[in-house]
Amino acid sequence: MRGETSENLASYFILFLGIAVASHSALASKKLLKEQSPCKSFVLYYHDTLFNGTDAVNATSAMVANKTSLGDFNFGMLVVFDDPMTTDNHLLSPPVARAQGFYFYDKKNEYNAWFAYTLVFNSSEHKGTLNIMGADLMPEKTRDLSVVGGTGDFFMARGIVTLQTDTLQGDFYFRLKMDIKLYECY
Amino acid sequence: MRGETSENLASYFILFLGIAVASHSALASKKLLKEQSPCKSFVLYYHDTLFNGTDAVNATSAMVANKTSLGDFNFGMLVVFDDPMTTDNHLLSPPVARAQGFYFYDKKNEYNAWFAYTLVFNSSEHKGTLNIMGADLMPEKTRDLSVVGGTGDFFMARGIVTLQTDTLQGDFYFRLKMDIKLYECY
Amino acid sequence: MRGETSENLASYFILFLGIAVASHSALASKKLLKEQSPCKSFVLYYHDTLFNGTDAVNATSAMVANKTSLGDFNFGMLVVFDDPMTTDNHLLSPPVARAQGFYFYDKKNEYNAWFAYTLVFNSSEHKGTLNIMGADLMPEKTRDLSVVGGTGDFFMARGIVTLQTDTLQGDFYFRLKMDIKLYECY
Repeated sequence: MRGETSENLASYFILFLGIAVASHSALASKKLLKEQSPCKSFVLYYHDTLFNGTDAVNATSAMVANKTSLGDFNFGMLVVFDDPMTTDNHLLSPPVARAQGFYFYDKKNEYNAWFAYTLVFNSSEHKGTLNIMGADLMPEKTRDLSVVGGTGDFFMARGIVTLQTDTLQGDFYFRLKMDIKLYECY
Repeated sequence: MRGETSENLASYFILFLGIAVASHSALASKKLLKEQSPCKSFVLYYHDTLFNGTDAVNATSAMVANKTSLGDFNFGMLVVFDDPMTTDNHLLSPPVARAQGFYFYDKKNEYNAWFAYTLVFNSSEHKGTLNIMGADLMPEKTRDLSVVGGTGDFFMARGIVTLQTDTLQGDFYFRLKMDIKLYECY
Repeated sequence: MRGETSENLASYFILFLGIAVASHSALASKKLLKEQSPCKSFVLYYHDTLFNGTDAVNATSAMVANKTSLGDFNFGMLVVFDDPMTTDNHLLSPPVARAQGFYFYDKKNEYNAWFAYTLVFNSSEHKGTLNIMGADLMPEKTRDLSVVGGTGDFFMARGIVTLQTDTLQGDFYFRLKMDIKLYECY
């Protein structure tokens, strides 16, 4: 009788621990993500070569809506792109993905942009897409966008893309370093 | 021998309970979110002052694509904005965030719009962004958009934004109440 | 004394099992999703009837930015739509939802598009929205976009939409089969 009671106590105690463990692990998995290293991460370079009206061979983006006269920073100018993504900062390195989407400028008193695009991977290493959107606060050294979904090898992924301007060359070429960190992987 | 058996039975029983608890807590956390209060919520007012061609000082948005002749409700008119967000419904209150993005009208027989934008916070209280998209079914009293990602203080957030038209003043100013509820926080 | 020790051992053992079970179930739930059937899935047909300048009665989409001269595949042409969604491939079947959003062409050497839109449900069966974005790699037989959020009956949903071209009729009508699979439901 006494034995059964102590076993019952033990089982309640362990049940309690079980609940504590279960709750803790749920909380921990959410919390730790922030500090932990991402489940997948890589750095790619985005090369945007804007169509100047004649160089169709090299251009990979084109303006589809003109800037407005609101301010002096291209407010409203909208660009559609199909830009190569490379693993180093050389425009002519073999692309490992394409960035397909658009950006527009959206601030009247400084340069500032907004992006939505898909990284399309179709290599032996990766097949699939990552869908990304967010503000490109150009004056900041780094700025974070959201990876809001993925397909194929990146099925249901979520994460953060950190942009850094790598170079700006005149009106028709710029390069961004994109540090892609996925915090939800399947 | 008998003691060991009963301990084994107890441990199987507790293991079973453990599984039940773990499964239940996983289900519960998903279900409860719907009924529970969000992990973070706040109300902000969005002020859209459309550029009329001359008032660049006050305007915070501009049309970048004209309406089409499909219907009489601005079908296709596309507006880029960098609009102030305030905690009350006064346009001139100090903004606590900017809403940067675009909307367009998309219905031929009534007013209806589609939004994608980023709330950019850069105050002592909040630093970071929330990325939002969805349909603004203007005839409805309230309409829900999706918070699809976040950065900084809103790292990896998801949730719902409920829009409510607060005022419409002619062609060049309208104000939306945005009730932002995050259901996934890190 | 010996009895208590063995009970303690048992409880540690069970606690250990409890952790293993909790961890395993967390991992399993993430992994299994990929192979498991989605928590919700359905197939709908998307009908895009582009405005030709005169047929406003039947048109449900309109071009808001012209194609550029970059390549021969409509690069930059941007279309806003409010298209009916039906359960079979007949244009005149009663729509069960509207697809509201936009697409643009974005490749200079073949047809390729990018979509962002909201499926708006307002029937006795479903009320709510699904928000979707991604690349439509038109030459592929099927291509996957991301369901990045949902509202109403689809509160906080995430998933995949698989597009398949069902028909292309001249310049002004095309139909896509959309296989919608939700892997995160609340």
